[in-house]
Amino acid sequence: MWRAYTLDVPKDKPEPAMPNPTAAMLVIGDEILSGRTRDANMYHLAGELVKVGIDLKEVRVVSDDAPAIVAAVRALSAAYDQVFTSGGIGPTHDDITADCVAEAFGRHIDVRDDARALLEEAYGRRGVEVTEARLRMARIPDGAALIDNPVSTAPGFTVENVHVMAGVPSVFTAMVASVLPGLVGGVPLTSESWRVMRAEGDIAGPLRALAGEYADLSFGSYPFQDRGRFGANVVVRGADPALVATAYARLQEMFPDG
Amino acid sequence: MWRAYTLDVPKDKPEPAMPNPTAAMLVIGDEILSGRTRDANMYHLAGELVKVGIDLKEVRVVSDDAPAIVAAVRALSAAYDQVFTSGGIGPTHDDITADCVAEAFGRHIDVRDDARALLEEAYGRRGVEVTEARLRMARIPDGAALIDNPVSTAPGFTVENVHVMAGVPSVFTAMVASVLPGLVGGVPLTSESWRVMRAEGDIAGPLRALAGEYADLSFGSYPFQDRGRFGANVVVRGADPALVATAYARLQEMFPDG
Repeated sequence: MWRAYTLDVPKDKPEPAMPNPTAAMLVIGDEILSGRTRDANMYHLAGELVKVGIDLKEVRVVSDDAPAIVAAVRALSAAYDQVFTSGGIGPTHDDITADCVAEAFGRHIDVRDDARALLEEAYGRRGVEVTEARLRMARIPDGAALIDNPVSTAPGFTVENVHVMAGVPSVFTAMVASVLPGLVGGVPLTSESWRVMRAEGDIAGPLRALAGEYADLSFGSYPFQDRGRFGANVVVRGADPALVATAYARLQEMFPDG
Repeated sequence: MWRAYTLDVPKDKPEPAMPNPTAAMLVIGDEILSGRTRDANMYHLAGELVKVGIDLKEVRVVSDDAPAIVAAVRALSAAYDQVFTSGGIGPTHDDITADCVAEAFGRHIDVRDDARALLEEAYGRRGVEVTEARLRMARIPDGAALIDNPVSTAPGFTVENVHVMAGVPSVFTAMVASVLPGLVGGVPLTSESWRVMRAEGDIAGPLRALAGEYADLSFGSYPFQDRGRFGANVVVRGADPALVATAYARLQEMFPDG
């Protein structure tokens, strides 16, 4: 009588809240720190993690500097359930992420046969020589699981809770798609956003009162400037879609003109 | 005879290298971590710091969470010469950056008369009421210097080596422009970028050799994918423009077809 059991669960009491798994991202990004490039991977990963209920709590961007990468890997791996890195796993001299991650966990690293076989097979098919430089992309720490790269073959890898991925956005995106299905997710947050064309100073009082009423939801106010006028996107987030919908309706009543 | 002394310095020997000042950025950014918004301020600040010879070494993005902000402010302030924060200084309940920075440095914080006067003057002129919420924007830690905000009045502030600025890009940009002229800069790096439409595996060997020849320069290779083909932007950076130009010419000779 499993059905009776299910029906016995009182509908008005939510199950005890299990906190969502947490995550951090580490971008190895000289090109971002030097102002050459806008980051794209952070935005992509943040969006994907929201969908599976893993809470992205921190992002760090560090330069191609071994001590900085090693320290960040250790700190983030200890503080969060999952860590995603982006960048620095190609064949050039400035690609040092794999060696730094190995060092962070005290693991031996060398060209590994399984990764080498992947590269030789793919390059062989295209008649491309597997140079010493390309073989660098087969350097994988002992015990790491390979991350599939359907775009350009050279794999990423997972050591403990750290997922090491490429920086090229198309490859990063493909690797994230390879990794996420294997992770334990949580409750995806529902969110609703209401664009209010009033200065934050005018909405702050009523918004604080509304946030006080709905302690299980989070209310964010993200100001912007549009053609000289200030407004704010007010975002209501929470695990319970019905509660988010109720609070969102209240928000719209409060500022009916947007 | 200071001039004789100056002339005695051999011209072919560069002055002993004084390392550039270092910097970090702290983005208080629920809206970035939740995947709602792409960061714009990081890109702007990175570009401005390069121009004045301050080396941006690290960026952290944390959520609107007091312990996370306090810990990040302390860590970055101790590790770098300058720290720039973005976000969380508006009038709404989720604007907690000012209080967190005060806590990080053990300083008292309250509505300060100089900041209140700024707000009252500006709002008074426009006939806007200075609500309790708006007065939150006059909460400034003891001993902090105000940062001018020509866009929307509410000031940022500097405590020790931490510059606390708004998240709205137009305001952030204006505050950066207010702060930078007062800081000690270094030698602006010169950089040249050469777009090579070859896979990194083909250019890695020669590029490593070139980087070995020019130890005073840094060589970065930033791969991309363009209509299914892989290429890389190879960037040569350094403090000595003549040396960068020489190495850049060598790079172009090496990969003449780009």
